[in-house]
Parts: sequence; structure tokens; C-alpha cells
Amino acid sequence: MPKAPVVIDLKFSGRAAIVEALGEVFHDRPVVDLADAKNRGRDLSDCRYAVLWKPDDDLFERAPNLEVLFSGGAGVDSVLALKSLPDAPLVRFVDPSLTRRMSEYVVLQCLYHARRIPDYIGQQAETRWQQLPPAEARDFTVGIMGLGELGQDAARKLKVIGFNVIGWSRSMKAVDGVECFDAAGLDAFLAKTDILVGLLPLTTETTGLFDRELFEKLSRSGPLGGPVFINAGRGGSQVETDILAALENGVLYAAALDVFATEPLPQTSPLWSHERVLVTPHVASDTDVSALFAHVERQITRFEAGEPLRHVVNRDAGY
Amino acid sequence: MPKAPVVIDLKFSGRAAIVEALGEVFHDRPVVDLADAKNRGRDLSDCRYAVLWKPDDDLFERAPNLEVLFSGGAGVDSVLALKSLPDAPLVRFVDPSLTRRMSEYVVLQCLYHARRIPDYIGQQAETRWQQLPPAEARDFTVGIMGLGELGQDAARKLKVIGFNVIGWSRSMKAVDGVECFDAAGLDAFLAKTDILVGLLPLTTETTGLFDRELFEKLSRSGPLGGPVFINAGRGGSQVETDILAALENGVLYAAALDVFATEPLPQTSPLWSHERVLVTPHVASDTDVSALFAHVERQITRFEAGEPLRHVVNRDAGY
Repeated sequence: MPKAPVVIDLKFSGRAAIVEALGEVFHDRPVVDLADAKNRGRDLSDCRYAVLWKPDDDLFERAPNLEVLFSGGAGVDSVLALKSLPDAPLVRFVDPSLTRRMSEYVVLQCLYHARRIPDYIGQQAETRWQQLPPAEARDFTVGIMGLGELGQDAARKLKVIGFNVIGWSRSMKAVDGVECFDAAGLDAFLAKTDILVGLLPLTTETTGLFDRELFEKLSRSGPLGGPVFINAGRGGSQVETDILAALENGVLYAAALDVFATEPLPQTSPLWSHERVLVTPHVASDTDVSALFAHVERQITRFEAGEPLRHVVNRDAGY
Repeated sequence: MPKAPVVIDLKFSGRAAIVEALGEVFHDRPVVDLADAKNRGRDLSDCRYAVLWKPDDDLFERAPNLEVLFSGGAGVDSVLALKSLPDAPLVRFVDPSLTRRMSEYVVLQCLYHARRIPDYIGQQAETRWQQLPPAEARDFTVGIMGLGELGQDAARKLKVIGFNVIGWSRSMKAVDGVECFDAAGLDAFLAKTDILVGLLPLTTETTGLFDRELFEKLSRSGPLGGPVFINAGRGGSQVETDILAALENGVLYAAALDVFATEPLPQTSPLWSHERVLVTPHVASDTDVSALFAHVERQITRFEAGEPLRHVVNRDAGY
């Protein structure tokens, strides 16, 4: 009996990587790549699986028999917001490549600010040779909000580099060598944090969480004299006007933002030109499409063998 | 019997840190800080120990009875070049704080280039949202030249982050999980290296080592299409006109330099304004003066107890 087809609807930049990766996986399973013109108008009623990111509006109408949905990214807020999303299990993308890349970004941004690279770049532009008061990683406490796979791996690597690391999550987690706080301990967590790292999913509870009131509770006794905010979670969690105001009045020392309320970040946003903001275009942890398809294939194999799927989204929690 | 005095002649920026640190160590041992005006003209013939960095020209004449010399920094080339340096043992500064700070700098610079932060800073300046082809640490081979305390610690931490790491030293070293090369293997080492990290002492053999011919032997098959050169060893090891030429003709993709042939880097150097060069003012691994004085005190205690000094410089090797 032929295998049931998987429909691919991924609005990623970088088509070539998708085409190349599709050639390497799914072997004898039919693949219907909707970005391929030949599939325009194809009957999708035989498709039982979908891998999707910003799918066509009519995908679920055209493919009414989907049994498992796979998100193309780690964050599923945009998938959960899709109109007429079927009630099938939605599987999040969890993969060592995503985790590694996110930890690289977090370690990089923490070191970049702790070792004052923005200041040295500024001095270089002015042909100025001046050694700033030395500080090292152990002089900073990094507070990570979000202690899932990504947060825990980042915490471990930050500790190897020498940072003090504390962590916060809605419900209490235990992470080796990391002091952890839960919802009730938020203020205590913030008061100890010199560098705040956001790795939270976007849910009703995290929407607008990073606001002026929260920034004002951060530690001001670190080596920079003010806190740094790094967000690599979701832009919807941050209030961008509050970030700008906090940078202006010194409530925040600097910010590194990889995510934004609206992406691409609008040309008119003052974040682009603020000298204490580093803007990156949502690249902290790009999806490695080869790893994504391998993950989908593994989960489909489990599903067809009657084993439980892994990384299924809890729709009530939103992640 | 009163303890023999230690004379301090440290031309570091940041006097306050020295004064503060001197208050915390040496307890009942007299300290003669030459930066203190009251010690101008003091008879130094009772001083048996000296802690020095860029000392006064007449220090050794004024203090003829020094039994141990302590370098204020990890690199001793400038100390060895001092006129009328006495034949007493010269002790290098080795300390976990120096090692940690250097590893922070190395990991930071490798991630900064691997994750294309210079390109994203450039795009931000142009209000441009564009995701560049993703690459992660494991796609790069970092080649470290110099496998002493600093190089080995940097190698270990780069591996935790995910980089492939290889190492080179004059005589063969064995480092867990790191393919090592010696003098005879230099070309093979360079051919595998996407990001070259210089952590070498300045000796006759390393003077001018990082030149055009060496850069041309580096790997060109990494994700950036050209190699990155990071030097946190000694500026005398690099040929700065060759670095500039190599950046111009694409032999090098980028460079991060913390050390220079002449420091401070002259205002006229084209390195300041090159868009693919990051200049930092010799801050990769600042001396923590508290740690320096604690190290000196430990070594003096050993010396006075008749135990062998640690980290004594081999004057023939130059480090």
C-alpha cells in the first residue's frame, strides 16, 4: 500500500534549501510541495500530514483529511492563530539544531554586551583608543525567562562561559546549578538580573509582558550601571515604545532584539536607528529545513506505528 | 624579622583599582608603590621583589637587590626587552581570571563572525531586514595557534558552543577532543582553518608570522567564503599591511584585532576605518590587579618557604 502523502506549505526565505532537503528525506512517501507550480490546484484530499509555516488561506479546505500538523518553527503562536485550523494534533519543531543556534545567539549577545563591544565599536568609529573598566562574565547575572529546551541549553552554556545564571518559568522548573523562580517569584528574579534574556512563547499571558513596569524591576547594580534586554522569543511579548522610553531615561542600558511585534520591523520604527539597540531580522535560531523534515519523518513513523507523537502543542497553554 | 618589601611599578590605566587591591593583600609585607608621590626618591635597596609593567628606566638601578621579578601581564615580551633586566627569575602572570577573560573574548569573536553580526549591523544602518543564509558554529573550524593555558581553555569552551576546534603549537600538544598540529603541520592546520585565532607569545619565531603567505594558506571553503583572523596574542606577530591587503583582495573575509604592532594603534592606521576590521584596545584579557597581587603573594610565600616558583619564564624560549 502506498504511503499517504505529506503536503508542504512553508513560506520560508531560501527555497533552494527546501528543495534540496526534500530530495534527501521522505524516501518513498509522496511529497506535495505547494510552492511547486505543478501542484497548483492538485487535489489534496489524500494528504494526511502537513508541514506548514504561514500556509495558504485555503490549505485546510483543500486538505480536509489531515491527521497531524507540523509547525515549521519552534514558536506556534502564528499557527494557532490560523483560521479554521483543524483539531488534529499540532507538533512543534524541536531539534538540536534549533537549540544549538539559539544558545549561540544568547551566549553571543550576553558576551557582546558584557564585554562592551558596542562601546568599542563606537570608539573605533571615533579613532579612539580607550580601555573601559574591565568586567567579565562572572560579574553579570543573566536571567533567562523561559526554561524549555532552549532556555535550559542556553543556561548551561552561559554557565560554562562564566556567567551567573538564574531562570524563570511560569511553573517551577529545576535546572542544575541555576536558581529558578516561578510566577510568584518574578520580582525577586528581576531584582537579581543584569542581563534579561527572553525565550518565551507568545501566549495571552506573555503578550506585552516586557513593558516599562517590568524593566524598572531589573537590577541596576551590574557593571554597566543598567540592565540589558535581549529578546529572542516572540516580538508580541515586548512593548516597543516602552523599550525605547526605557533606553532614553536609563531604565535600560541596551537592547538586542531579534523579534518584533511586526515583522519585518517597519521602516519607520525608531528601533532601527537607536544607538543602544542591536536589530537582527529574526535569525537567532533559523529552522534547518533538513532537520525539520527529518523530525517530521521520525514523528510520522512513530504515528503510523501507533506510538504517541512527541512535542504535541497544548492548545490551552498555547505552546 | 620584618618582611622584605615588594616594589610595585605598574603603568596600568585604572589607578583606583590598584590602590584598592593593594589594600587587600600583602598584609604585613611593606609595599612600595612607585606611583605614590611619597615614594619618589625612596631607597629601594631593601626591596627583594618587584611587580612591574612598563617600569621606570631606573628601576633596576634603584633596586639592585631584587630576587624575583613579577610581570604584570601574561605576555612577557616587553619585560624581556627591558634594558639592564637583572638575571633574577621572571614570573609570568597566570591566573584563572586572565584565562576566563581571554576565552570570553575568543568565544565572543568567533560567534560574532560566524553568526554574521557585522553584516547585520551594516543592514541595520541601512534599515534593511534581510535574513542571510544561516550558518551555525558547527559549520566552522576554529584553528587556535598557541595551546598554553589560554589556548586550551578557549578550545574547550568553543567546543561546548559547537565549533570544530583544531590547535597548533610549536611542539606537539595533546588536548582532549582537539586535533593538534606542530611546526611541521602548519600548512595542514591552516588548510582546515575557517577562523584563525592567534594566542601566541611574541618571540623571534612569531614576529611577523601572520603575513600574507600564511593567510593565503587558510581554508576558503567555510560558510563565509573566506577566512576570519582574530588576534589576541601580540601585535608584533602580525603584518598589518598584509592584513589590509588580504582584506582588500579577499584573501581574508574579516579580522578582529585586539593587539597591534604599535599600541595605542596610531591614529593614521587604516585599520581603524576598515569596514571588515573590529579594533579593540588590548582589552581581550585585562589583568585583574587583585588576582595579580594574590598570585604574587602566593609565589613569594612559596619562594620564602624554599619551594620552587611557578610560571618562571624560559628566557631562551621567550615565554
